Parts: sequence; C-alpha cells; structure tokens
Amino acid sequence: MLFSEDTKQDLIKFVQNNVGMKRIIPTVLIIILFYLPSQAQQNDSMMLNRIFAEIMVNGKAYDNLRSLCKQVGPRLSGSDNAEKAIQLTASMLKIAGADTVYLQPCKVPHWVRGSQESANMLLSDGTRQSMRLCALGNSSGTPSAGISGKVIEVSSLEELSVLGEKGIKGKIVFFNKPMNPLYLRTFKAYGECGVMRWGGPSEAARFGAIGAVVRSLASNDDDYPHTGVTEYNDSFPKIPAIAISTNDANRLSASLKTDPSLQINFITSCKMLADVLSYNVIGELRGSSQPKEFITVGGHLDSWDLAEGAHDDGTGCVQSIEILRSLKAIGYRPKHTLRVVMFMNEENGGRGGEAYYNFAVVNKEKHLFAIESDAGGFSPRGFATEMSASQYQQFLKWKPLFENYDMTQFSNDGDGSDIYHLKKIGALVAELRPDSQRYFDVHHAVTDTFESVSKRELHLGAFVMGALIWLVDQYGL
Amino acid sequence: MLFSEDTKQDLIKFVQNNVGMKRIIPTVLIIILFYLPSQAQQNDSMMLNRIFAEIMVNGKAYDNLRSLCKQVGPRLSGSDNAEKAIQLTASMLKIAGADTVYLQPCKVPHWVRGSQESANMLLSDGTRQSMRLCALGNSSGTPSAGISGKVIEVSSLEELSVLGEKGIKGKIVFFNKPMNPLYLRTFKAYGECGVMRWGGPSEAARFGAIGAVVRSLASNDDDYPHTGVTEYNDSFPKIPAIAISTNDANRLSASLKTDPSLQINFITSCKMLADVLSYNVIGELRGSSQPKEFITVGGHLDSWDLAEGAHDDGTGCVQSIEILRSLKAIGYRPKHTLRVVMFMNEENGGRGGEAYYNFAVVNKEKHLFAIESDAGGFSPRGFATEMSASQYQQFLKWKPLFENYDMTQFSNDGDGSDIYHLKKIGALVAELRPDSQRYFDVHHAVTDTFESVSKRELHLGAFVMGALIWLVDQYGL
Repeated sequence: MLFSEDTKQDLIKFVQNNVGMKRIIPTVLIIILFYLPSQAQQNDSMMLNRIFAEIMVNGKAYDNLRSLCKQVGPRLSGSDNAEKAIQLTASMLKIAGADTVYLQPCKVPHWVRGSQESANMLLSDGTRQSMRLCALGNSSGTPSAGISGKVIEVSSLEELSVLGEKGIKGKIVFFNKPMNPLYLRTFKAYGECGVMRWGGPSEAARFGAIGAVVRSLASNDDDYPHTGVTEYNDSFPKIPAIAISTNDANRLSASLKTDPSLQINFITSCKMLADVLSYNVIGELRGSSQPKEFITVGGHLDSWDLAEGAHDDGTGCVQSIEILRSLKAIGYRPKHTLRVVMFMNEENGGRGGEAYYNFAVVNKEKHLFAIESDAGGFSPRGFATEMSASQYQQFLKWKPLFENYDMTQFSNDGDGSDIYHLKKIGALVAELRPDSQRYFDVHHAVTDTFESVSKRELHLGAFVMGALIWLVDQYGL
Repeated sequence: MLFSEDTKQDLIKFVQNNVGMKRIIPTVLIIILFYLPSQAQQNDSMMLNRIFAEIMVNGKAYDNLRSLCKQVGPRLSGSDNAEKAIQLTASMLKIAGADTVYLQPCKVPHWVRGSQESANMLLSDGTRQSMRLCALGNSSGTPSAGISGKVIEVSSLEELSVLGEKGIKGKIVFFNKPMNPLYLRTFKAYGECGVMRWGGPSEAARFGAIGAVVRSLASNDDDYPHTGVTEYNDSFPKIPAIAISTNDANRLSASLKTDPSLQINFITSCKMLADVLSYNVIGELRGSSQPKEFITVGGHLDSWDLAEGAHDDGTGCVQSIEILRSLKAIGYRPKHTLRVVMFMNEENGGRGGEAYYNFAVVNKEKHLFAIESDAGGFSPRGFATEMSASQYQQFLKWKPLFENYDMTQFSNDGDGSDIYHLKKIGALVAELRPDSQRYFDVHHAVTDTFESVSKRELHLGAFVMGALIWLVDQYGL
C-alpha cells in the first residue's frame, strides 16, 4: 500500500545505481523496501479482518433494523412516525458511541395518502373488475367521486407527443412498460421505466389527460402496487396519478386489446399539505488529526408509507450506525471526522441531502469522501464511485482487499441521491452496490419488511463500507 | 475458443518461418487465425445470450417451483407427497419437451416423524420452560412417556471421549456449537458443526448417553428448529435425538451455567419403517451425434418434512428442468444426450444417487459431465468442479463468459452428493455455488418456503448451468 510497484522499481534502480558510491545503503534498504509494503498490505488485511469480525460477531445493525421496522415502521417525511424514527435513531447513535449526536433541520414536503383508494376496470359488457392500486407519492387526489375515463395505453413518454391532444384529451393515460428482464442489474431497468412514473403524469396532462395510471416498477409480475414519487410540472394540471400492480397492468392491457372502449375509474384522497420542519440525524466520531475534514456515510431515514422501509432504506441507516459502532468498539479513532448521517426526505423531495450540503457550504466544511447505502441490504457485490481517473486507479488498488470478501464489482459511475451535491465542494463520492436481483420485488411496496432482510447480508454490507472508510481515512485518495 | 493462445502463437511462428518458402500462405492464414477464434468467442457469447434471454423472459422454473411447493409441499422419501412430486415433475419434464421421461427405481428409507414432539427444560426451582424442537431425521423416538435426564453440554465430538462414561452415562448430551459467523461462505461453518448432528448421537451413546440434543444448524439465532439427518452407528444404542432452535440452545446453555443440575425431558414419536420403492425422475434430450454419452444435470426431489423444500432442493429440480426446456425452446439439439435427473432420497439415504450410478455401471454408460444444484436458488456466484488440473485450466477459459453475468467464483473443489459417484466412471463433476449468506436461515426448517425464493435469482442459476452445459456439449473438457 505504501509504495506502488512503479515506485518500488524506481527505488530499486536507485539503490542499484548507487551501490558503487555508497556501500551502506543497498541490502538494508532493499529489505525495507520489500518489507514495508508487504507489511502495510498485511496490516490493511488484518485491520479489515478486525472490522469484519467485530461486525459479524457483535454487529447491532440487524437488531436496530428490527426496532426501526417494528417499533416505528413506515416513516414518510412529515409523519409522526418520521419524528419517532428521528428520536429512535438518534438514540441508537448515542448507544453506538458517537461523540456527538445532533439533528440538522430541514423543511420537508408533507404528503398524505388519505383513507380512500380504489380502482376498477369497467368493461363494455358492464362487468367491473377491481384493481390493486396506490396513489403515487406527491400526487393530487381525485374529486371525492373519483375520476372515470377511457384509457390510452403507452409504453414511453415519446408516444404521448405522437398521440397528441387528439389521442389523449379527456382520457386516462396508462403507462405500461415492464421492467426489462434482460438487464442483468435491475437498476438499469428501473431507470428506463422510472421516467414514466416521475414525469409521465405531467406529460400526459400536457396533452389533456385527466388521470394517469402507471404499471408498478417491479421486476416480476405480482399483486402488489409499488408506490414512488411523481414530479408535477407546474405548467400543466396536476392530474391524479396511481400505480397498479403488475398483474393488474397485464390484465388491463389484455382487456384493452379486446375492449378498447373499456373505462377505468379510480378514487384517491391523497394531498400535499404545507411543508413541515424535520431533521437529518447526525452522529460523529471526531477525527484525531484532521477533525475539520469529513468522511460521511449514510442512508435515508424516511420511507414510503406502505411498508416498513426495511431495504429502502432502513438497511442503509443501520449499516451506517454499525460502522461507527464497530470502529469505536475496536478502538479505532479516525484521523478525519466520521459523520453518520440519516438523511430525511430522500423519497419525495431530497430536502435532507440539500440541507446537509447547504450546511457544509455555509460552514465552509471540507468533505473528503461520502458514501451512501441506498440500494438494499443484500449481499454486497461492489462499489460505484465518482472520482477522477487517477483517483479511481488509486481506489482500484484496494480491490484485492475486497475480493477476499467476494466483492468484485467496481466501477466509476455512481454517487447517491443524498450525497451527490457534495461533489460540488470537492468530495469524492461512492455508493454500495449490493446484489440487485431481489430489490424491485420489495421496493416501495408492502413487501419491504424486516423479514425480507438477511442478517449476514446486512452485516456484510456494513463491513465493506466500514472497510472502505477505514482505507480512505488512512490513505486518502 | 477454437485455438488457445499458445496454439495461435505456434501457428503464427510456423507461418513466419515458412514465409520465405511458400509465398501463398501468410496473410490469408493470419487473418483466418485471428478471425476464427474471435468469431468463435463471439458465437459463444451470443449463444449464452440466447439461453439467458430465453430463461429470463420465458422461464418456467419459478412457476414450476410454486407448483412443487404449494401443490405438493414437504416430500420426504417414502411419503405420499414424494410420490406426488414424482408424478408432478415427470409431467413438468414432458411439458418442457423431453424426448423421453422415465422413472428409475430405488428403494428408500421410510422414516416418519409421528405426531408427538415436545421438549422442556426443568429447572431445579421447579419451573418448566418449553423448547422448540424437532426430531432429527432417521432418529428413533422416545418411549411414549419421553425421556428425562441431566444435561452435559459439549461443543465438539472430541469432548465426549474426554468426559467418558463417567461424565456422560445416563445423561442427555447437548451439542452446542454455533455456526462460526467468521466464515464468509456459510457451508464451511455447516460442515464444521454438521459432524455433531450426523455423528453426535451415536458418539454420545458410545459413552452411555440416553438422548442427544443438537443446536440447530442455523447461521443466526432464531426460533425455528432445523432438522436434518443423523447417522446411527450400529455398534451403539440408537438413542433419541432432537434439534432445538438456536434461541432455545442459547437459553439452555445459559441456564446450565447457573443451574447445572437442571434436567430436560423430551418426547418424540418418530420411527423408521421398512424401505419402500421410490424413483428418480429422469428426462432426456437425445444427443444428435453422441447419444450414448451423457451430460447430467440435477437436483434432489425429496425434501424434509417440515417445510416446502423450496431452496432444498426444489430450486435445483426446477432449474434442471428449465435447462432442458430452454435449450429445446431455442432449437438447440445437444450433441451428447442431456439427462435431467431429479434424485430421490438425498436427505436421508442418498439412494437415488446410488441407483443412478449403479444403473450407469450396469449399462456401461459413458458419462462426460454431471452438474448439481443443491445449495439453494440464490444469485449464482460461481461453480466448483472436480477435474484434473489440465481440464480445470481448460474450464477456466470459460470464466470470462460467466463474468459477463457477475459469476466470478471458480474453484476446483466441489462435486455434489448425488453425482459424486459418477467420478468413479470417469465423469467430470461440478456444482453450482450460489450466494450462501441466506441458505442456513431456511435450511431444513419451516422457513424454506416458495416465498423465500427470488424469481430472478432462481432463473439466473438455471441460466448459468445451462450455459456451462452448452459449452461442455460443444467443446468437451
């Protein structure tokens, strides 16, 4: 670790060239040259093993996750449960051994689902079939009688402009693009289909649609509606928008083929209230030599209201706390200040991430590195980073240390939705990349429960992030 | 694929050396030399992609697993459900497109749990605490009143001989060694602790123990007893043997520290009946050019009686069927005969594997390759093989093809409990190595349900085995 192979070769040449002149140097120096790096590598490996052992044997992340999911549960920004989660995780950080624990204020949107949600397919022959639905986050509700209309099915945003007002006005637009099963890593498929949930309702409203129905963003066909945020464009009417389960999307699509005049109706009673004051939860281990330089590790504390928010993103929160706990437990005092941050409002506003960044700017903080876990608590497979090519080359030298723990996927193409702002003030950023196969089975749905998390997978994820933080703290990038 | 790098270099030298003599060869030949291999590699890659697409888009393994788990469920050898599973999977093989489907007879042990199972800790102060238990597979039941006795706790077989008759006679031996959380891959910990379940009861009986209690082989502390086979040594009394949940094992161990005179009692009503006739289920795709040479892929059809046997080993069965289905669906006719085998009785006898081998010997069958999936239906991480060093080097040349699908763990140290016999008649063998972190949460316990399986993970496992089979069929080893 201390010397690159090139440097080592240069030094050996230097020794060899100077052997004639100075007889003192050679043997001892060569021994030192070879000994030091290998000793350093061994030390790195041993230190990683210590962190690994501490987390795999004494780790508290799984128990903390149980508390967060079962004592608090769903914790959408602005809700009473979000407040409970703030208090609970602040207490976890204290127990974990943080030097200081504090709340960082941020105003967050306060969207509520309300008690009314129903949807039906109304076939031309008079039959009626209910559909499993949920309002999209931040969407407007329907009038109390609901909305009804004919349906136009599309599988991309582009189709909307082809159809135009003529094809869309007065209708309900049905966005029905299944996540592509051929993408090995599921986030690619999520990104491709996600644009329709994020931007689809407003794009439909641009052409006069009265409502929007989105196929749930789920990897497989099932009966669960998966919610998620939609983003209205203020230039167009804020039409009601829902997600239906993938099975219902298949049924609706099949019915439309034989009965294009069928109607659907749906009722939602969700609404956006005034912003409320909320908080990021922050715990620190003060740096021994560079306390004014920060390494951040975090996940987001808010979750959707439909489930326990275990993988999204309870796991990121408890893993981050676990890193602080385990470093403290093995007696490691970081050189730089380690900040564990549970960001508020990632799901429907991103205000916590903004507040953290704004605070850093105002206080002229120096941020060395930030890493986020927000892709589920599954077996860690690698890291994605955003840094310069030369920094990334340095980063890759650590890859063998992680390969010892079956982490092999490294790429320089990732940041994280709560930490990406920090790049503007010079931070290098990274995100944990766990195995992605199961994530969109549970994402934003009632199935995202504590029971769907594996203790060993969760703790392994905490370990690899802790190991990376230790390396960055020791050697920089 | 067609030429190794060494061969290519030799050929290039040959061309260069002969340039002076024969002016016709050089340019054209060099082009061919470089073009052919890269074309072959591209073709391999394209073929793997075709199999991948077929399975990820049209795969039936997940639906078949649902049927096996929900229509049949637990299917211990000799049970009515095992018979149902034979009929169901034979039908699946026909639907998948096998040329021939047949049943291969084997006599299997017929162990039944019976209806009585209870266990209690009886503390010296008179209090009584129930424990969650299950009889170990193949174990003898207790007298109808149960057995009671003081407890001696050990964490290894070796401790038994140190304690001797003096320390053990008349007591119940409690084998309490947690699976080591520091082993990254969980099968290592299972092997280390498993010896106590397999051999512990008889070793305890050797020194006069009246019963044996084994800590469940589970990665984490939970409330579920995990069963599994024990193997009596005929030289000693067949004492009743049970597993208790890891949480109960922790409680029992803690209580023994403060109350070493506590007793436990337990009642089981399990018994071994006479062997019954059962079957391996076999489906074939006949080879186009070497139909008398066999490639075998399989899992085991029997499961423990406590759960649906999803990961153990419904997944191996439906993956194997899927390989046949997908190769047929894309119009690939193997050169060698592909045999999909659902082995009976892996769990408590291994008779199906033996029968398959014996049949091969009697019929002088030539077995080229056999691969087994019996480590859960989780994300595939690699293959373990057993072959010569030179064959393994050849095998490793395919590694990059699998790395495209995030499979990186290759090692020459694995076979499979139903196929290892085939090594004796020259077969090269391999096993799928899925991510192992979750396996021992569900293994042999009521938690091994269909719901614990991810469709994408299951189908990816089928794909990588299908891809390997295609490569072996094309190129041999």
